[in-house]
Amino acid sequence: MTDLIRSWIASANDPACDFPLNNLPYGVFSTAGGAPRCGTAIGDRILDLHGLEQAGLLEFSNQLQTGRWNEIMAMGRDTWARLRRELMEMLEEGAEAQAKIEPHLVPMAQVQLHMPFAVSEFTDFYASRHHAQNVGTMFRGAENALPPNWLHIPIGYNGRASSVVVSGTPVRRPHGQLKGPDEAVPRFGPSQRFDIELELGAIVGQPSERPLSVAEAFDNIFGYVLLNDWSARDIQAWEYQPLGPFQAKATATTISPWIVTAAALEPFRVDTPDREVPLLDYLNEPGPMLYDIDLEVGLAPEGRDETVICRTNYREMYYSAPQQLAHHSSSGCPMRVGDLLGSGTISGPERGNRGSLLELSWGGKEPVEIAGGTRTFIEDGDVLTLRGHAEGQGYRVGFGECVGQVLSDRRGS
Amino acid sequence: MTDLIRSWIASANDPACDFPLNNLPYGVFSTAGGAPRCGTAIGDRILDLHGLEQAGLLEFSNQLQTGRWNEIMAMGRDTWARLRRELMEMLEEGAEAQAKIEPHLVPMAQVQLHMPFAVSEFTDFYASRHHAQNVGTMFRGAENALPPNWLHIPIGYNGRASSVVVSGTPVRRPHGQLKGPDEAVPRFGPSQRFDIELELGAIVGQPSERPLSVAEAFDNIFGYVLLNDWSARDIQAWEYQPLGPFQAKATATTISPWIVTAAALEPFRVDTPDREVPLLDYLNEPGPMLYDIDLEVGLAPEGRDETVICRTNYREMYYSAPQQLAHHSSSGCPMRVGDLLGSGTISGPERGNRGSLLELSWGGKEPVEIAGGTRTFIEDGDVLTLRGHAEGQGYRVGFGECVGQVLSDRRGS
Repeated sequence: MTDLIRSWIASANDPACDFPLNNLPYGVFSTAGGAPRCGTAIGDRILDLHGLEQAGLLEFSNQLQTGRWNEIMAMGRDTWARLRRELMEMLEEGAEAQAKIEPHLVPMAQVQLHMPFAVSEFTDFYASRHHAQNVGTMFRGAENALPPNWLHIPIGYNGRASSVVVSGTPVRRPHGQLKGPDEAVPRFGPSQRFDIELELGAIVGQPSERPLSVAEAFDNIFGYVLLNDWSARDIQAWEYQPLGPFQAKATATTISPWIVTAAALEPFRVDTPDREVPLLDYLNEPGPMLYDIDLEVGLAPEGRDETVICRTNYREMYYSAPQQLAHHSSSGCPMRVGDLLGSGTISGPERGNRGSLLELSWGGKEPVEIAGGTRTFIEDGDVLTLRGHAEGQGYRVGFGECVGQVLSDRRGS
Repeated sequence: MTDLIRSWIASANDPACDFPLNNLPYGVFSTAGGAPRCGTAIGDRILDLHGLEQAGLLEFSNQLQTGRWNEIMAMGRDTWARLRRELMEMLEEGAEAQAKIEPHLVPMAQVQLHMPFAVSEFTDFYASRHHAQNVGTMFRGAENALPPNWLHIPIGYNGRASSVVVSGTPVRRPHGQLKGPDEAVPRFGPSQRFDIELELGAIVGQPSERPLSVAEAFDNIFGYVLLNDWSARDIQAWEYQPLGPFQAKATATTISPWIVTAAALEPFRVDTPDREVPLLDYLNEPGPMLYDIDLEVGLAPEGRDETVICRTNYREMYYSAPQQLAHHSSSGCPMRVGDLLGSGTISGPERGNRGSLLELSWGGKEPVEIAGGTRTFIEDGDVLTLRGHAEGQGYRVGFGECVGQVLSDRRGS
């Protein structure tokens, strides 16, 4: 575990700050009237990287002007390392460049944050042992909880990239086909079982045209974001057989605005849990490829106090993102810069570690206590907030917040 | 049914030609050393539309230079209609502009064809009654063949856009996890049950951010291509539960190079079959939205004669593309220009009408006769060709060919 790297920006040295110099997450921001541009978070500031580029302080050719990180990702790992090294040097305590850099700092409170990258395609996995066990038990009973392939395949399905939105975007409760177990035919109406899924999203930073080893897949991942895969459980229950979730998960998927790089997470690498059955060779990891990242979900009814309804950790995953990416490419599937891989809902062993309301309320049967009330599924006006950070010695590498408020289904309002 | 519109290009007036003036399908082509550009097929020629644009004969601002039709699609229905009208006038028998247009014609034999558009996202459906019945019977028995939701929902799942390739691209037999019913654990190896799926692909030409009616969805579809959704049945059987097909269909999906527009298919509109149960309102069609399109699949072992193994018709679909698009948008899922919707395998009532080898060989149990041999699934070197056309009075509106040769799985070769 490395120590805090002190910055001349005082707020970055606060042990409770998500964005110390060790982190340097990448995002896209705009100030009043300006076009979206690339930046990095440092303490309570954003460093305007396109401003540095224009001033000749960073040697890029307008890749930082694009309002998305895809172009930088496409330049490859050497560029990723060079940019991080140069930013570290500029911002470290005692840096000679301080006076030149200061004019390019913007208070975070004054900016709007945008999607940090263009999502090429979105894939979602189903890779936390406890989540699969919980959901399987509810749907198929405890004895048949885990599908026969689950311990062999990092099960995934293709999601919908067009519905990925940045933190803060309101989410409209979806309509869809609904059919209760006792109803003869489906009806069309607003989802009554709208839910969250607490996930981490891995961002593919390099393209590939052939099957990747797990080690190659690790190298191709640029960084991670928090990801809330909003899910309409009642739409899902009726539509998902035999070809999987479709409209149940197409309304929105919210991601946090800061890409925390694999480089920043390097000190926090941990092994996947012990294998219950041996994996096929193409999925074996040459080293630890999960990260020790504390995660939580807060729920606040509109205008009311928040209750933290879930606390868990990314190390609970049975499969790592590099394993998922290696599997994803195993058929020869081409992968592209900007592909987003959702980890799958991250649940731990205890009730309070469950990453969805479906699990927390056990299918709606055991309401969850929140300040001043209870919840089974999301109610209109509820604000859901995901948070996450890795804990270093005297510092943390944080993701910021991934927030979404659920609005009524009423059309046109 | 309209009659042939005669062109001054004689080959376009041949009743057996796929590309009469009534058709005017849109593609992207290049000649030796040149960049890909937009064109239309007419008889045995391609009209260079970027050339017309440069010469001031078509009023566009380099949208025809892009090497993809996305920009034209994004301009909207009035532009689609204007371009078709202007091209008709230029190419009709007796057109004044003949002398000016002639220099911009290129023999089709001299060009390379490319992907006609950039695929934003790819969705595949499961919407032919006979296909669902056949596959369901093999997997679950005749009594449980049709899933309970099938007659209510145009069932779809998200596919992989990065793997969509243009006709002529070789397809490498995929590796994947395979587990026979009598094997205790899976192994990793080349698919032994590699298959085709005969489909039509609908191309979304206008974006949307909210649920669409079926009528609005019809208006947003720019055109259609032939689509072969290559499928590894053994990978699929082991991976697909509970979240649907993933790597089984991620190796490649081949489309034909010419987008046949909805405008060209207008005379061939037919109703969907009678509903077996009433549909929910949001799926009801205000008019006929399928097309009478004859389809066939040819299989030729490497260097040998082709056998037509399937003949069917697009009117066999239980759900039309506008119904599928309306359903796709029902949750609020944003749709984008360039989204590709696969119809699902198109099978008819008789054995010879089945659109996949899985069905034709009944899961491998009843080999299909071909010239000089038999087939259950695809063998290395086999060339699979999809063809389709709507039959007018003395002319046809054809799709050209959608071809792919399957190569051995050997890596690096």
